Amino acid sequence: MELSAWGTKMAALSGIRSIMEDIAVTSTGADSGEWLNLSPGNPAAIPEAAATWQRLEQEAVADGFAAASGRYGPSRGTDGLVQAIVRYFNQRYGWGISAQNVLVGPGSQLLCFIATTIFTGPHPGGNRKLVLPATPDYTGYQGLNLEPGGIAGLPSRIVREDNRHFHYALEPGPLRQGEPPGMMLLSSPSNPACRSITAGELAELVSIAEAYDIPLVVDNAYGEPFPTITASSARPVHHPNVINCFTLSKAGLAGERIGFAIGGTQPISAMLSFLANCALHAPQLIQAVVARALDSGELDTLTASIIRPYYVNKRRSAEKLLEELLPSSIRWRLHSSDGGMFCWLWIDEPWFDDLTMYEEMKRRKVFIVPGRHFFVPSPEAPPDEHSTRCIRLSLSADESVIAEGTARLARALEQMSHAK
Amino acid sequence: MELSAWGTKMAALSGIRSIMEDIAVTSTGADSGEWLNLSPGNPAAIPEAAATWQRLEQEAVADGFAAASGRYGPSRGTDGLVQAIVRYFNQRYGWGISAQNVLVGPGSQLLCFIATTIFTGPHPGGNRKLVLPATPDYTGYQGLNLEPGGIAGLPSRIVREDNRHFHYALEPGPLRQGEPPGMMLLSSPSNPACRSITAGELAELVSIAEAYDIPLVVDNAYGEPFPTITASSARPVHHPNVINCFTLSKAGLAGERIGFAIGGTQPISAMLSFLANCALHAPQLIQAVVARALDSGELDTLTASIIRPYYVNKRRSAEKLLEELLPSSIRWRLHSSDGGMFCWLWIDEPWFDDLTMYEEMKRRKVFIVPGRHFFVPSPEAPPDEHSTRCIRLSLSADESVIAEGTARLARALEQMSHAK
Repeated sequence: MELSAWGTKMAALSGIRSIMEDIAVTSTGADSGEWLNLSPGNPAAIPEAAATWQRLEQEAVADGFAAASGRYGPSRGTDGLVQAIVRYFNQRYGWGISAQNVLVGPGSQLLCFIATTIFTGPHPGGNRKLVLPATPDYTGYQGLNLEPGGIAGLPSRIVREDNRHFHYALEPGPLRQGEPPGMMLLSSPSNPACRSITAGELAELVSIAEAYDIPLVVDNAYGEPFPTITASSARPVHHPNVINCFTLSKAGLAGERIGFAIGGTQPISAMLSFLANCALHAPQLIQAVVARALDSGELDTLTASIIRPYYVNKRRSAEKLLEELLPSSIRWRLHSSDGGMFCWLWIDEPWFDDLTMYEEMKRRKVFIVPGRHFFVPSPEAPPDEHSTRCIRLSLSADESVIAEGTARLARALEQMSHAK
Repeated sequence: MELSAWGTKMAALSGIRSIMEDIAVTSTGADSGEWLNLSPGNPAAIPEAAATWQRLEQEAVADGFAAASGRYGPSRGTDGLVQAIVRYFNQRYGWGISAQNVLVGPGSQLLCFIATTIFTGPHPGGNRKLVLPATPDYTGYQGLNLEPGGIAGLPSRIVREDNRHFHYALEPGPLRQGEPPGMMLLSSPSNPACRSITAGELAELVSIAEAYDIPLVVDNAYGEPFPTITASSARPVHHPNVINCFTLSKAGLAGERIGFAIGGTQPISAMLSFLANCALHAPQLIQAVVARALDSGELDTLTASIIRPYYVNKRRSAEKLLEELLPSSIRWRLHSSDGGMFCWLWIDEPWFDDLTMYEEMKRRKVFIVPGRHFFVPSPEAPPDEHSTRCIRLSLSADESVIAEGTARLARALEQMSHAK
């Protein structure tokens, strides 16, 4: 059956999804136990976090069933959760928001899809793009826009620090010229680099959003206030042109797909109608669970005492391992970050290619993620050297898996550097 | 901030949503307890159903947490649920399907939205519409298409039975002429009329879908195999051009937004990619709950021994009430159905107008739903007399509420018929 243009775009297997399928297929079979997986975007299984959520789920099922599971609910979110969000953010950040600024959704990915569809695409003045102002960024954003060519990425500037570290700095200047975008979207701290935008960078993006009167969507999946995986993540800001997306995924509820957006009443109202039309509302039992976690303060405790220290420690050990094991003779750098779910490595050698490395590591029974899919190539910004010289390592696996995986990575680099 | 053309369409408050908002606003306040609500699309709160789901939720939370809630899962659905669906449908209908024919989603509404977006809209040969071949039909379908004017409805033929009953017969002939549609979509048994398409009608629609090689999406929300609210609902058919949508909403999980589609591997694969791109996957804890309900046979027991008899009885009493109370001097007819969640009344009098009746009933503290929003007006098919002379009464309320609401409806009709 013939797909529409939208269907053809949305049914395409993106680069990263083909990698993920390859990993799923490759690691299924008799030798599945032998693989070391440093690829997952899944958060780590932290027993204390799982125990907290399980208890809250039990409590919610025990006393909330009839109201929660059996009846349709409000598209904005259950009154209990919406009010808990309003209280939490007003108390923590002094934003002065009300229910009209909040929209709960079945995962923040769907909220980002809705915002993209509402603000990009056909406009009275012509087609407008989804712009990622800080690439490399989450590859999933490239699956949000319905029209081929409807997305553009703005490469970041590379700032070298000491000889083993670098970071990305935003260069949003070009956004002030040319056609107005429909919407800007970025993750901070970012997947894959754990790059947190600075308050100054955020202010500049907000001023661009204001100038065009378009939304800047900030995806706080890894940032404040939960799980705050990266210690230095910038505080979210409330502004009529900013839509902040939050999710419980990295605080331990990834499988339940629950997230919410906070923004101006006009964009939130438009997103609410879209959500009502396409999905009615988010699942309600888990909304009761999250409301409990917010109101009781347990989510804050979990974040501060369990999840954040877990990733800070994981990241610290990983940095030590990389420093110790990777060949000192090759030019490699790690994107700086204090904490985070990933290590983003830049192997700045002419012989290095991320896809070749992916295949080489597969031969060594280790999965990593090639870096190029986090960049957005376009006719105006073709893939450059840098985008093919990065890889992402996940820190969700056990310490022993990370240690052995890193050792195999070091041996592969050693051999590849001699072969060329 | 300026919305895209898609945003403008999707943010619009449709007729039925403005009615629903009016009901929500009107019934909130000091006198909220005085209202009789015969408008809800919500299933009835049946204690035995709620108890079964609550127990299954408790079991799933107790032993499934780590696998279910904490980790991202497959976009097709959890292996446990997908396999349970495959076993259930193969055993019940002998379809011979595999996992590749199944897609679980966060509600069947989102699955219908995805199918609509994949198959309607811009095609190489021009824009294609979403066609509802059996109006009146679920108003929510009018919120699925992204482009204004992207939907068309085909009016059904009215068949008068005895002097108090009628039913709609499909007239799909016109679909064989003109531009090919992108996709056909209908509910059976239908919301609002509880019309079940016959095996012959279904076969004709399938043959049209085959001729154009487009999908026919059948929304079985009220039908087989759960909840089978209407006794005579036609068996779903498995065919390369048919996508069947199923939901647990009317079996007691409306608030948890869980549904699934079964169809050919090509459309299911395209829908899977879209779902992965826009929402990753459906929530997982509730998938574990549904898998248990299917595998254990408890869903079948619940349907056969509790839910179906509940609605059959509710409908029988309502029919009796209407017969006894509505003025015998006016021409009114009920759409025939053996069971169902609604009564669909046609008041075939020149002085009757559904919106006027809605306001009149509000003055009498009763909410009903005006019928016109279930039709799809278009330049080719402007609203006709019939579409403004129907109302929908819900059977979800308590018997006493239905009785008193029907008595007030009877008095209103009596007075209006004398006034004109």
